[in-house]
Amino acid sequence: MEQRIREITKGILEDYRGGRFIDRENHFDQPDKDVVIDILDKVQKLIYPGFFKAQSYRYYTIENSTSTLVEHVLYNLTKQIGLTLRYSKDYEGLTTAEMAEKAQELSFAFLRTIPKIREYIDTDLQAEFDGDPAAENKDQIIFSYPGLYAIMVYRIAHELVLLNVPMIPRMMTEHAHSLTGIDINPGATIGKYFFIDHGTGIVIGETTEIGENVKVYQGVTLGALSTRKGQLLHGVKRHPTIGNNVTIYSGASILGGESVIGEGAVIGANAFITTSIPAGAKVSIKNQEYVVRYDDGFTNPVQVDKEDSWYYII
Amino acid sequence: MEQRIREITKGILEDYRGGRFIDRENHFDQPDKDVVIDILDKVQKLIYPGFFKAQSYRYYTIENSTSTLVEHVLYNLTKQIGLTLRYSKDYEGLTTAEMAEKAQELSFAFLRTIPKIREYIDTDLQAEFDGDPAAENKDQIIFSYPGLYAIMVYRIAHELVLLNVPMIPRMMTEHAHSLTGIDINPGATIGKYFFIDHGTGIVIGETTEIGENVKVYQGVTLGALSTRKGQLLHGVKRHPTIGNNVTIYSGASILGGESVIGEGAVIGANAFITTSIPAGAKVSIKNQEYVVRYDDGFTNPVQVDKEDSWYYII
Amino acid sequence: MEQRIREITKGILEDYRGGRFIDRENHFDQPDKDVVIDILDKVQKLIYPGFFKAQSYRYYTIENSTSTLVEHVLYNLTKQIGLTLRYSKDYEGLTTAEMAEKAQELSFAFLRTIPKIREYIDTDLQAEFDGDPAAENKDQIIFSYPGLYAIMVYRIAHELVLLNVPMIPRMMTEHAHSLTGIDINPGATIGKYFFIDHGTGIVIGETTEIGENVKVYQGVTLGALSTRKGQLLHGVKRHPTIGNNVTIYSGASILGGESVIGEGAVIGANAFITTSIPAGAKVSIKNQEYVVRYDDGFTNPVQVDKEDSWYYII
Repeated sequence: MEQRIREITKGILEDYRGGRFIDRENHFDQPDKDVVIDILDKVQKLIYPGFFKAQSYRYYTIENSTSTLVEHVLYNLTKQIGLTLRYSKDYEGLTTAEMAEKAQELSFAFLRTIPKIREYIDTDLQAEFDGDPAAENKDQIIFSYPGLYAIMVYRIAHELVLLNVPMIPRMMTEHAHSLTGIDINPGATIGKYFFIDHGTGIVIGETTEIGENVKVYQGVTLGALSTRKGQLLHGVKRHPTIGNNVTIYSGASILGGESVIGEGAVIGANAFITTSIPAGAKVSIKNQEYVVRYDDGFTNPVQVDKEDSWYYII
Repeated sequence: MEQRIREITKGILEDYRGGRFIDRENHFDQPDKDVVIDILDKVQKLIYPGFFKAQSYRYYTIENSTSTLVEHVLYNLTKQIGLTLRYSKDYEGLTTAEMAEKAQELSFAFLRTIPKIREYIDTDLQAEFDGDPAAENKDQIIFSYPGLYAIMVYRIAHELVLLNVPMIPRMMTEHAHSLTGIDINPGATIGKYFFIDHGTGIVIGETTEIGENVKVYQGVTLGALSTRKGQLLHGVKRHPTIGNNVTIYSGASILGGESVIGEGAVIGANAFITTSIPAGAKVSIKNQEYVVRYDDGFTNPVQVDKEDSWYYII
Repeated sequence: MEQRIREITKGILEDYRGGRFIDRENHFDQPDKDVVIDILDKVQKLIYPGFFKAQSYRYYTIENSTSTLVEHVLYNLTKQIGLTLRYSKDYEGLTTAEMAEKAQELSFAFLRTIPKIREYIDTDLQAEFDGDPAAENKDQIIFSYPGLYAIMVYRIAHELVLLNVPMIPRMMTEHAHSLTGIDINPGATIGKYFFIDHGTGIVIGETTEIGENVKVYQGVTLGALSTRKGQLLHGVKRHPTIGNNVTIYSGASILGGESVIGEGAVIGANAFITTSIPAGAKVSIKNQEYVVRYDDGFTNPVQVDKEDSWYYII
């Protein structure tokens, strides 16, 4: 038994000597996903002071609990950012001490954006409540709605992108993606009163720009046209621009960096758009033809869409 | 350093004084998502006495382990319901003591529905096994299948909806949504032998009614037409009615409160239905036209669907 | 109160005496999902020695940490496999001691495949990096990308399928499905350099065969045609075969065990394929007709697709 374990171990250790990327051994500390998720939880408590119990902290005053949360986020975020700065060319040549100082500056800068994040989240919450007839009240949306959660995590991660923090923003949004099925790249720009319903399958690409009062339903892709050039396209605007007051119904795809959806446009369910759409236009797939059969062999084509409902679909 | 932390904290505290909804501070206890998830886990153990180890309880007799689980659910559910009754107008004016008593009554009433829930789950399990050629055995379905899990959570949450419990049902189904990508509103009505395969992206709206022996595949939406009136539509029947023995293949959408899918109908993959379909009808999108190109520039339209397979798709 | 708890418990205990499948009481130990997930975590650490801290083990040498991980996996996997062998007819008639020995043999055999799994994963990582312009670096892909995670779990689970281990492979891939929305049946066969982007909603069925250098985007189904015969189809080839260098864009479905997608073919977004496609063909849905309306009543049909973008869609 011991001999066999030794042989297995030896085989794996030999395999580590292949010089491939995955063969790298641990010469430095890595950013820690669990700590990044803990930071998200603490920032969520700062965003909604009255909605999530700070279970490990019991204080009589909101001053003390807020201050403790701020210190907790500051300490952990500084440490995590410190572990990721080496990934960016912008911080090359810094000494360890300079990196640590830079990490602390960035963490302070992030903490100062919390009122701005809260300003946006308050509008997103209002949009969720106004847009969903199934919502019982706003508390329910804060406690349970995946759309608002994914938007909140995006808004937190996006501030870190604006501060040029590597790695951590995407770790955050992929955590939200895992929990909600909503994949918002933290590089996207999204205005106030953003509304997502159901959400599973939504993809919003890195260079997408979205105005205010936009509604997006499950399965929508705001994506790129060809990415065949792969890394050569890094940084290029390749995702669409969505104007104010646009509604995009379920399953629709809008693709390409030059596609601009004009203010107030409505994109019908399952539409597949790879060009610009004028302001105010309501675009939907022309009624598809269907075949209907019965077991007695009778076949006839029918229209299964209501004439007047074409663009209302969620 | 201390000074800077104080300034950040002060800025956030000032931001809390905006009088917005999210500025509310914690004047009462909130329902606790972790406890609600724990209740689901314990009810799951009550539903399947032989399949999930009650890890914290080790008993020699099923009588003792069952009794302990019942007490555990009763205690926690009573407490959680107690925290949510104030959300409903139906319990306005009750004293704290009356609310506590009501919460206990509702918890007892829920516990009495467990045999009914088990009666339904047993049929759902059978439907999963009969419908999926990849299933090795029923144990595997109980341990691993997201479809059966989402249905179970829906059935538990739906009983709480019938008892008029606020907030908690949706917390439960959103937990299942997060784990499975299957979004079943707890208000929906679903008959026995309900079958879901793969499941990711399924949306079943609040006022949907589904008969017995219905099969639903990944990406299906049973949704509303326009919800532009938002909260004005609260409580209105806006999702479809699905008859017994209906099959709805992947990616199909059926929308609108007046859409009735007749008994035994089959809705083909990706169909988009906003009206009623007669019993026995097999509806599918007419073969779409495709364009096929090759790098040598040759282009020709082809039919890429088999004539006879049109309605069989998963 | 006590009396009412007793009555509830009694009612549930009586309900357990129905003789239904779900009424089975716990006469033997079950495989444990938490332990299976822990095995996945430990194997992930063995695959990437330098990327995930082995938090409970702190060693100065990689020899010791590797050896400890190997022993940990061996112990737990042996125990879990031991609990599942009775599900397979292939091990009928074995004594308890023989089963335990068989379980250990299978665990050793699995551990010997780790270099093979690593060989594949290294190519998958390269494919992710080359194919995604949003990737900052390979570390990010290892830490955050759901596509690579789902592929890794599939590759681990598939080796257990090849060893004829029951139950556990599917528990593993359903864990990845829950975290990523990507549902890869562990029975599928997938070549090197496999690329998944975004991933939510992908379904890859049990008898699918995929060549090398294949790219698959969110919402793609590689599925079966009719599964109405249910368990009668168990083991039958009912999912497609995908050649080398094929790209399948978002939302496309390719269905049926006789459908073969030839080398280098490109399947456009939302295409619905139930037959074979020749090598080199680029297939896309012919531009759909759309209706565009404005609030002033003006209606006109427009083409919303760019002529040249038809097959590039993600």
